Amino acid sequence: MDYEEPQFFRVMQYAARADRDVVDMVSGNPDWDPPEGLRDGLRDYAEADAGDYQYPPSVGLAGLRDAIAARRGVDRNRVLVTNGAGEANHLAMTGGLHYFDGTEVLLTDPVYPYYAGRANFLGADRSFVPVAEDNRLRPADVRAAASEETAVIVVNSPNNPTGAVYDADAMAEFAAIAEENEALLVSDEVYDHFDFSGRFASALDADSPNVVATNSFSKTMAITGFRVGYAVFPPEDGPTGELLERARTQHMLTNVTGSRPAQYAVLRALKTTPPDYYAACRRRLERRVDAFCDALAEAGAAYNRPEGGFYVLARFPDFPGTFENVYELIDEAGVAGMPGEAFGESRSDWIRFALVTPRVDEAAARLAAYFE
Amino acid sequence: MDYEEPQFFRVMQYAARADRDVVDMVSGNPDWDPPEGLRDGLRDYAEADAGDYQYPPSVGLAGLRDAIAARRGVDRNRVLVTNGAGEANHLAMTGGLHYFDGTEVLLTDPVYPYYAGRANFLGADRSFVPVAEDNRLRPADVRAAASEETAVIVVNSPNNPTGAVYDADAMAEFAAIAEENEALLVSDEVYDHFDFSGRFASALDADSPNVVATNSFSKTMAITGFRVGYAVFPPEDGPTGELLERARTQHMLTNVTGSRPAQYAVLRALKTTPPDYYAACRRRLERRVDAFCDALAEAGAAYNRPEGGFYVLARFPDFPGTFENVYELIDEAGVAGMPGEAFGESRSDWIRFALVTPRVDEAAARLAAYFE
Repeated sequence: MDYEEPQFFRVMQYAARADRDVVDMVSGNPDWDPPEGLRDGLRDYAEADAGDYQYPPSVGLAGLRDAIAARRGVDRNRVLVTNGAGEANHLAMTGGLHYFDGTEVLLTDPVYPYYAGRANFLGADRSFVPVAEDNRLRPADVRAAASEETAVIVVNSPNNPTGAVYDADAMAEFAAIAEENEALLVSDEVYDHFDFSGRFASALDADSPNVVATNSFSKTMAITGFRVGYAVFPPEDGPTGELLERARTQHMLTNVTGSRPAQYAVLRALKTTPPDYYAACRRRLERRVDAFCDALAEAGAAYNRPEGGFYVLARFPDFPGTFENVYELIDEAGVAGMPGEAFGESRSDWIRFALVTPRVDEAAARLAAYFE
Repeated sequence: MDYEEPQFFRVMQYAARADRDVVDMVSGNPDWDPPEGLRDGLRDYAEADAGDYQYPPSVGLAGLRDAIAARRGVDRNRVLVTNGAGEANHLAMTGGLHYFDGTEVLLTDPVYPYYAGRANFLGADRSFVPVAEDNRLRPADVRAAASEETAVIVVNSPNNPTGAVYDADAMAEFAAIAEENEALLVSDEVYDHFDFSGRFASALDADSPNVVATNSFSKTMAITGFRVGYAVFPPEDGPTGELLERARTQHMLTNVTGSRPAQYAVLRALKTTPPDYYAACRRRLERRVDAFCDALAEAGAAYNRPEGGFYVLARFPDFPGTFENVYELIDEAGVAGMPGEAFGESRSDWIRFALVTPRVDEAAARLAAYFE
């Protein structure tokens, strides 16, 4: 198959079988604690009335949609709570392919493999736009690639795996390109709380009827297993209002609704978590970025310093990002990353390291020693 | 649209606006307490390590799959934990339509509207087999309706809305018909703990490569909002093994995985809940069935005495199951049911009442008084 998990698993299983200690920098699971309010929410929910254990509204708990709508500055009606950003992206991509005439999904290279796998599963044609040398996607390149065949354009900022962050101008351009080509821009913004650059802008700021923004609390609250995400669709009374109506139907017929304990806990955390929590998470990641990048520089590696998110791409001299080389790093250096070739062609010389481990320094030292 | 919720909502919203007290017998939400072990599971999970808040395996927590596999007498590999039975049915139906040549989904009349809505959404042709006078689906009628055009046959036992329970012979016949027509039998068994007849048999007993059984803990544990269900697919190494492989991929690309707090709590409840809990729930429903059916008899109504599940279909003299009449019952009798016409043609003279309210006696008395 053509999506991330088996490749993830391949590497993680290899690391688990290794005859030595290995620092896991493969998975995208935050290693820090969730907000205390989230645990409070779970505690309260354990004592809730039986009625509170029954179906929430299919579109999500009203309070949760309110909180999301307030944060995103949109009408609550546009917010659909989903089973993580995975379902949000799924609904958006299938919706765009159904609504617009084209059959093509425009993706970036390197690509988060789920996007490519999903497009493939849906029978769409896929086209990949390579990012520039600085890891950013150039609107001009997207415009050149887009055509009347294009139904969906997917962008992700802060980006997995490149760490690029797109500013308001870039996002407005992407939205304009979607409009010009009668396509849907799907903007996956799950790492938006981890913007180190200060330049992050949501695609929603483009105020376009051709934009769906997706997000989740998986990374922000360190709860990838809770599956609480959302999509913000164009207004129902606008020219593309059908997208929202159909997404609601598809969500209903696929999942009925999302899981209520998780939604309840997230809502509590949204209401009670001070800004310090998010700032501390961001600072922790920035420190790890600094330490890891410094060590990579010492090891003579090329690397991207991420503008956001928690992944670093590194390129070691004469050591391309193949599965074979990644396995060698596991066995010989005791560090597990993801081979760049898993993300497409343009970064196949690189290896992705996820900084969601307290052992970043140790991993960096091991890499430096190995490549010394 | 062509699925249940808006119709549900139409009736529930009408009832909520009514200028009087109304007994809600519309929704399918159990009104009793979940097992205490479920709450214990939530309490423990609130204190769990941060690592336990991250992605569970896409196919579900291993312990949960083990417990399901043991209960159903199948290999764990065949069990896919889903976001409720809704997703399980969705995966099974889409899988059958993809794998087999036909484009037709064979449903019963009356039908649980989600099945019909889903088939419609997926672009399938739909064909409805009316149940017999006794509310049971006759295998001979299904056989006569099935053809090489048939890709999926959906059955539901104990049945919503008729209360029919299919025995092992009927299930074996349904499976054989699926095999004969190169189609998939999807057997939705979510009410299996509420079998009053003692004749319930799972479609899995037919031991056929053309059967997917779906289920959930929503009704059994009174947790419709948790969204923990599952599908048992044919063995991966059998002739239809591709169904399982594709369902896993579709699940991954749609939802990534299910919600972990809910899976964790259900697993705890499965391990700790004594048989008494389930028996008490069944007895409670049996008492309600008796009381409600007795009152219907007094009111001069025809009714089905359900063999399982928690719905009763009733037919009042010269009072067909239209939305109009249901609204009249809300306003004049203070009882809200679902119009039979929402479930198809064969029971359009009937009204469905869900016995998931402690006020069954009161509702029965109101109906008796109204039709006196």
